[in-house]
Amino acid sequence: MATASKTYLDLVNDCDRFPYDDPLASPSEHWSSIYRFYLPNDPRHHGLMLSSTVQKMLWTDDFLVNHQARTVHLDPKDTSDLSKSCTTALSKQVQVCIDAKDSFHVISGRHSEPYPIVGANYPVSLERYASTLFGIISRGAHLTAYTQTSEGLKIWVPRRSPKLFTYPNCLDTTVAGGISLEDPFECIVREADEEASLSEDLVRKNAVVCGCISYVGLNDARGGGEMGLIVPDIIYVYDLELPADIICQQNDEEVKEFTLMSIDEVKEGLARSEFKTNSAIVMIDFFLRHGIITVEDEPNYAEIVARIHRRLPLPTGPSKIVG
Amino acid sequence: MATASKTYLDLVNDCDRFPYDDPLASPSEHWSSIYRFYLPNDPRHHGLMLSSTVQKMLWTDDFLVNHQARTVHLDPKDTSDLSKSCTTALSKQVQVCIDAKDSFHVISGRHSEPYPIVGANYPVSLERYASTLFGIISRGAHLTAYTQTSEGLKIWVPRRSPKLFTYPNCLDTTVAGGISLEDPFECIVREADEEASLSEDLVRKNAVVCGCISYVGLNDARGGGEMGLIVPDIIYVYDLELPADIICQQNDEEVKEFTLMSIDEVKEGLARSEFKTNSAIVMIDFFLRHGIITVEDEPNYAEIVARIHRRLPLPTGPSKIVG
Repeated sequence: MATASKTYLDLVNDCDRFPYDDPLASPSEHWSSIYRFYLPNDPRHHGLMLSSTVQKMLWTDDFLVNHQARTVHLDPKDTSDLSKSCTTALSKQVQVCIDAKDSFHVISGRHSEPYPIVGANYPVSLERYASTLFGIISRGAHLTAYTQTSEGLKIWVPRRSPKLFTYPNCLDTTVAGGISLEDPFECIVREADEEASLSEDLVRKNAVVCGCISYVGLNDARGGGEMGLIVPDIIYVYDLELPADIICQQNDEEVKEFTLMSIDEVKEGLARSEFKTNSAIVMIDFFLRHGIITVEDEPNYAEIVARIHRRLPLPTGPSKIVG
Repeated sequence: MATASKTYLDLVNDCDRFPYDDPLASPSEHWSSIYRFYLPNDPRHHGLMLSSTVQKMLWTDDFLVNHQARTVHLDPKDTSDLSKSCTTALSKQVQVCIDAKDSFHVISGRHSEPYPIVGANYPVSLERYASTLFGIISRGAHLTAYTQTSEGLKIWVPRRSPKLFTYPNCLDTTVAGGISLEDPFECIVREADEEASLSEDLVRKNAVVCGCISYVGLNDARGGGEMGLIVPDIIYVYDLELPADIICQQNDEEVKEFTLMSIDEVKEGLARSEFKTNSAIVMIDFFLRHGIITVEDEPNYAEIVARIHRRLPLPTGPSKIVG
């Protein structure tokens, strides 16, 4: 890994890659080329699709594609229960992708767990792998376990298995998982046991939610699948202070090994770009919240904080009820 | 104070008031009517001025105003030392404002301490009151002092003096101050003694910087001065856990009294809109970082987090050195 040493801002730039537009200038190519994805009865778009995805997709008759307006509207025939008919229509579209000979790499012929469409006015879900094609918001939960030692604060850092499809061999957050149809906290409780052998009881009692980070990524080679897919992401961050006698141990095949790292060792791993792209910014957020990165030492402090809490260009909550 | 109960998002909306533009739509009136303020030899604008301010200002010949392009360029005659000549030119312009009969309310005929122009490529400063007219970034430091008690975590909350020009009688962060030509930490050490009688030694040892919040405000009636002035703001946030035997006491005329409030009491103060506008979001940030606001209970969690960490529409650091 003979890469140049990365600054914190470099790591943020690697993760939050979708460009920011100047409100006084014309829309950049990114904005003017994308298609917006809409649900029925909702004027807000819930996804940002690449033109190449829209062209390649073998659309079912549940969708209306308008190349002039650059929009894709989900328009199911049965409108009596939009929650059900939209979820079914999306499911059929995923099946078409799986059945197609020349399918999308990101789906790679497999089904995956349902992800809710965040911010929809009624519950709608779409399979995880396909959600990236539609450019809808994905959500994860990350937990950083740490211990106070005589040598200072140390962090439990896993190394990902070399066999993983995404980010093989990379360093990672102690515990991390994608959020399916569940509460973020339930996700982290489950994953903490599965990935790090941390008991449900311990995590329920001591894990604290400390905010969330958000960014708009563009899928890259390390992430697998089509390049350039737009990935608006929210990660809920949890801290868990562990007593010295509790250790993290791998419990499934996703993790190769755990190391209790000093802050300097974590900093070196970050500088060498060894962390999974979004786990690097979870670590940066931990450093910011614990005073490890300070205003006086980091010239890009305000820029880093704002960038890892990006306001996503998609709704994150239901429309206001007019009453 | 018989106002309706405010949600956390209402309080964020009261503070982060400058509108967000849709990159695919035409610039909103706010964006198309403002003037951008530039320093010499720097293509990035450092301030956002209201049209009414630009019209009313009696500009000295150090400034070039272009009503077509809606720009104001600082253009000092002496370019041998831009740091010095820009600061001097701005100082002369402030003096013109102070001397004018019909001056700006926000300056109210007085000089104030120098604020650096954040993100400039060379040190330039402008007096605090005038910085709001130029719409440059202002910076503050806020410290929340809290204590673990048998009844749970409690927070030291001051009530502002009824005699203050801005936000009289409002509840506030334990310690808060505007950052002049000093490091944020030095600001908070000084203010902690001046406002809350917290010793320098204690604060230096135990105060921890926990990130920053940022927003773009529009000056309102409670803030004094011209309405609608654009206030891009960065607040560095510090936590200070106090042992039970250390108490906060007023030490100057800005604070009326301190109360050690339970979380429920703070929540009630927030709901009644009793906090100073930006101190309310400092408290919300504290609640987020300490797991007091949770994802499961707050439907606008992600929106609130992103809004209080807004990426400012002005540079926060120097340009990249091309080398």
